Amino acid sequence: MNRLDQLCVNTLRFLSVDMIQKAASGHPGLPLGAAPMAYVLWSRHLKHTPADPAWFDRDRFILSAGHGSALLYSLLHVYGYGVSLDELGNFRQWDSLTPGHPERTHTPGVELTTGPLGQGFAGGVGMAIAEAHLAARFNRPGHTIIDHYTFGIAGDGDLMEGVAYEAASLAGHLKLGKLIYLYDDNQITLAGPADVAFTENVAERFAAMGWQTLAVADGNDLDAIDRAIGEAKQDTARPSLILIRTHIGFGSPVQDSCKAHGEPLGKDNLLKTKQNLGWPETPAFHVPAEALDHFQSSTRQGIEQASAWQSALEAYARAYPELADELTAAINGKLPDDWNAQIPSFPTDPKGLATRAASEKILNAIGPKLPALIGGSADLNPSTKTVLAGMGDFGPEKSSANTWSFAGRNIHFGVREHAMGSIMNGLAAHGGIIPYGSTFLVFSDYMRPPIRLAALMKLKTIYVFTHDSIGVGEDGPTHQPIEQLAGLRAIPGLVVIRPCDANETATAWRAAIEGPDKPVALILTRQNVPTLDRSELASAEGLERGAYILADAPDKRPDIILIASGSEVQLIVAAREKLLDKGIQARIVSMPSWELFDREPDAYRESVLPRSAQPRLAVEAGASQGWHKYIGDQGDVLGIDHFGSSAPGDRLMQAYGFSVENVCERAMKLLKK
Amino acid sequence: MNRLDQLCVNTLRFLSVDMIQKAASGHPGLPLGAAPMAYVLWSRHLKHTPADPAWFDRDRFILSAGHGSALLYSLLHVYGYGVSLDELGNFRQWDSLTPGHPERTHTPGVELTTGPLGQGFAGGVGMAIAEAHLAARFNRPGHTIIDHYTFGIAGDGDLMEGVAYEAASLAGHLKLGKLIYLYDDNQITLAGPADVAFTENVAERFAAMGWQTLAVADGNDLDAIDRAIGEAKQDTARPSLILIRTHIGFGSPVQDSCKAHGEPLGKDNLLKTKQNLGWPETPAFHVPAEALDHFQSSTRQGIEQASAWQSALEAYARAYPELADELTAAINGKLPDDWNAQIPSFPTDPKGLATRAASEKILNAIGPKLPALIGGSADLNPSTKTVLAGMGDFGPEKSSANTWSFAGRNIHFGVREHAMGSIMNGLAAHGGIIPYGSTFLVFSDYMRPPIRLAALMKLKTIYVFTHDSIGVGEDGPTHQPIEQLAGLRAIPGLVVIRPCDANETATAWRAAIEGPDKPVALILTRQNVPTLDRSELASAEGLERGAYILADAPDKRPDIILIASGSEVQLIVAAREKLLDKGIQARIVSMPSWELFDREPDAYRESVLPRSAQPRLAVEAGASQGWHKYIGDQGDVLGIDHFGSSAPGDRLMQAYGFSVENVCERAMKLLKK
Repeated sequence: MNRLDQLCVNTLRFLSVDMIQKAASGHPGLPLGAAPMAYVLWSRHLKHTPADPAWFDRDRFILSAGHGSALLYSLLHVYGYGVSLDELGNFRQWDSLTPGHPERTHTPGVELTTGPLGQGFAGGVGMAIAEAHLAARFNRPGHTIIDHYTFGIAGDGDLMEGVAYEAASLAGHLKLGKLIYLYDDNQITLAGPADVAFTENVAERFAAMGWQTLAVADGNDLDAIDRAIGEAKQDTARPSLILIRTHIGFGSPVQDSCKAHGEPLGKDNLLKTKQNLGWPETPAFHVPAEALDHFQSSTRQGIEQASAWQSALEAYARAYPELADELTAAINGKLPDDWNAQIPSFPTDPKGLATRAASEKILNAIGPKLPALIGGSADLNPSTKTVLAGMGDFGPEKSSANTWSFAGRNIHFGVREHAMGSIMNGLAAHGGIIPYGSTFLVFSDYMRPPIRLAALMKLKTIYVFTHDSIGVGEDGPTHQPIEQLAGLRAIPGLVVIRPCDANETATAWRAAIEGPDKPVALILTRQNVPTLDRSELASAEGLERGAYILADAPDKRPDIILIASGSEVQLIVAAREKLLDKGIQARIVSMPSWELFDREPDAYRESVLPRSAQPRLAVEAGASQGWHKYIGDQGDVLGIDHFGSSAPGDRLMQAYGFSVENVCERAMKLLKK
Repeated sequence: MNRLDQLCVNTLRFLSVDMIQKAASGHPGLPLGAAPMAYVLWSRHLKHTPADPAWFDRDRFILSAGHGSALLYSLLHVYGYGVSLDELGNFRQWDSLTPGHPERTHTPGVELTTGPLGQGFAGGVGMAIAEAHLAARFNRPGHTIIDHYTFGIAGDGDLMEGVAYEAASLAGHLKLGKLIYLYDDNQITLAGPADVAFTENVAERFAAMGWQTLAVADGNDLDAIDRAIGEAKQDTARPSLILIRTHIGFGSPVQDSCKAHGEPLGKDNLLKTKQNLGWPETPAFHVPAEALDHFQSSTRQGIEQASAWQSALEAYARAYPELADELTAAINGKLPDDWNAQIPSFPTDPKGLATRAASEKILNAIGPKLPALIGGSADLNPSTKTVLAGMGDFGPEKSSANTWSFAGRNIHFGVREHAMGSIMNGLAAHGGIIPYGSTFLVFSDYMRPPIRLAALMKLKTIYVFTHDSIGVGEDGPTHQPIEQLAGLRAIPGLVVIRPCDANETATAWRAAIEGPDKPVALILTRQNVPTLDRSELASAEGLERGAYILADAPDKRPDIILIASGSEVQLIVAAREKLLDKGIQARIVSMPSWELFDREPDAYRESVLPRSAQPRLAVEAGASQGWHKYIGDQGDVLGIDHFGSSAPGDRLMQAYGFSVENVCERAMKLLKK
């Protein structure tokens, strides 16, 4: 390593460990070991410019091993991303730009929130899919507008997580050649040597999954790392994993020990590390002028590339004005004016249709008008009804079937719910895409970690969760969601919508796409539900407010309020009539979304569910948890607080009390009649 | 295939498809394709006896591809497990023994509830760990008491799930030689050809993970399957995967198509299939007498083996009476009389200790007395404090470190939370073991699917979830649980306990181990909490009832009731004093477990949280969801309904209102004072 390179690498190392020491909290092991690979990548390969961190055709960089955040913040500082020395000094403190793990939207230059292991790795696969897709959709001969790599640094912990295996298998299958991961192979985890639990042959495993694998024996050998990255870039038919043998806590007295992983070096060991690597003991946060010059000079190329790209985009706009408009709108998250023009309105129909079936029609009405919308399911397309008909299949071209290309808008995620969720995050974070993904509601459990991260990142991702209750029927309790609605509603920032019929489903899709940048979960039935008569009942547009009065007591002074969501709304509609026959006036409220309702003004909420004394009965075929907030002390919930059973769905609904008769009985009981 | 074998295989095939046809629901593809491998396994290899389905040294069989349940029920019928033809005829119906997916405890002979893909595969790894562990602990020269295989059938979907990768990597690492999976390699998934999404080289991938892999080119070649199973059994140093090329829906007009996967063949196609395979068109559910004789004669060996084992156990009991007692108690789930004798009582201490640290002491007080207790963490032992000190590490012996053996009681799961959960299910379902597993509470999200299955199976598994709130501090929002408590509480049958101090932690461990067969999640702090003065406050034994009065209003007529769990209990204890200074009498209630409280009699619940008019304030550093059930219309929740932030934990607690001052202020506000 030449002197200047060495100076730069050590600048990154000591900025990082000084941050951690000052914070008295953090993970010094990774920055000390992986600074060389990060330096080579950022100075010699990564296409980026601090002048425009959001430049669309930049290479994406993901620190999947997010606990090494100090290294990332050091990079952002020296490359001029507006992360000041003060911010580095406030590492992990209240209101700083430098939180314990990297957070997208919080710090300029952070592409993805990472920390929960495996999520960055899988998110990067989503970014690479986005790039491949947009390139195929928008590039034209002589006009290469989309052309960038996705790079990442991953550790042992990332590679041990199931989500990373799923994503690696899919990335190899899809031949995502512009995805390049540097594996910080330090053979140490938080708890000890990695070989305590992890002895698989990583290179062979990735090769078996269709990846190019490259090895660098010495993690301090900048030229070897440089060559390997170069080689990885050449192979555009396979994703690449570069195994770089590093030493955790390099240069410190705790090098190669798990003690270097997750706690500050301590004053003495920090001093010894500086001595070992020939670094001045003071001041802390030392950035030699020569090193800073060198870092910043390496960004000049990026500035030129970004400016050349602007010119290229202008030329493209002249040659292909419509495509350029479409691309620019997608980049800016702007919806085409007529995107929702074809969404059908569904006529009253007592037999009705499943909301998953309504969703299919709506999705296919939106799809042609909204090119940014792409997605698929975890091997459940025939069941979740989430195919964009005629829009092609995403993947390398196949001689046997001409529907396949990177321009295809249907992603076949395989039986990989978890990776689907993480990939959706990568797609949305990349930009230019509104991703949707689908599975059975019960299997949303497999993908909670990325749903949480989508909410934390405020990404617009759309989950289509079908088979939403014991209505699933014969498949039995393993396939019947009970607690999933409550579990999803508990996630801060996630909007959960469970429409009651085809028209509410249309409004729900509209809300999902038009709403602010937030993840939305659409909860849909397997079984048919009546399409309600909106000439008698209030308009399905009411869904936008989360809950609305479908029909009120004739004199607007209800004896009781019946509340329901989804497939149970039909029960309260019928119960209202029956109760009226008995002289009981009921208000019925469709409540598809707690989150949408909770953000309404007090006055509206009070108008729907007044605090006054009427008893309220909530009816939902799921866990009762959380409903008490809306029903009050005088209220009751008809829910299910046990697992389901295997039998036809209508049999189960009857057995568990989801019948008009039982709703009436429970209502009468509340009224003590 | 000889005529009799063919007859037997076709008996299994047509029992299965007749069941599905009659139910008008189910998955005929797998039984038609995989009946031959199941037949060879059960008739020539599987050590089992219908005379005693719970015989402890039986081989375990897991149908990981649980949607093929009809095949399993057909096996259980013909081998005499008490699943009658009537029950087969009631497949997937209310109150039958034959639910849509196999359910442990519901049907005799079903070892594990499967259906959610990947769970059976990973659960089997747990069973193989249990066998290896118990064999190492209990076998003595000349006395081989524990010696059985774990077999399973897995499909493409199983192998695509991340949890199966995690478990496979760990199984290879651990050299679980008595684990043998048959891969039903039919190259078709629910949605289409598997190669739409799954083209990795499965054999090479498993080899890279340390497995023996064997291939059978023709899934109807009984002898080739037989030989491969024999070979797999020989290699006891590696788990084995046998790739068996089958044809989904074999013999039917929809063979090799995804149409065969998940819906009944239909009357015409069923007829054609019977014609194609030379089977009588009527009656349905035909079991030729000759086939039945043959099936049942093959169980004779198992009956003899089971009886020989009983004799061997008696000889063992004479030679090693103490060990035999210990083993018998473990098998029967009986706790040693003095198992809890060493559990410490913690003295009052205002500084206190983290409940994770208290848990470490308690665990290590129980460990030596309760040999069935084994477990570990997902690479977080130093943080979650879940090492059984001096009890050895589970794994093949190492020349470099003599703590390792299969008798070791500390399992190093690696960064594999999901597999940890599924493996715990396998350990518990195997019997003889009480498994615990640990990670940070926020990462319980990674393992929700197996937690749900543990609850469904009523398994005694103990989760130790530490770092239980924003008290985590600097690691930031990715590592700070918010909605996890609510999410876990929503799972039916799971008992969640969040103790407030060291003594409640001791009671919590006691409740977890002594309680009925249910999964229990212990929710513990990272940060110190005071050890409460129990001479002033009520005994920590109160935890057993879920919620209890720590201290009441001096005149037992409280103006307000303050409720809290875990680290927030200290706030209400201090707030009570402060409020008293202002003339406000507060009752304070520690409420570590909703589930334990909810099962108490009405009278007790009313005595703690009376329905009368006092306002109630609940304080918990987590999502407020669900608390309204306990606080009523006049109540309030001091919770957190947004994500956290990166800063020292006490800074966050202050910022989000978890201070004595704010608790008092909120209480005054409720009292409108």
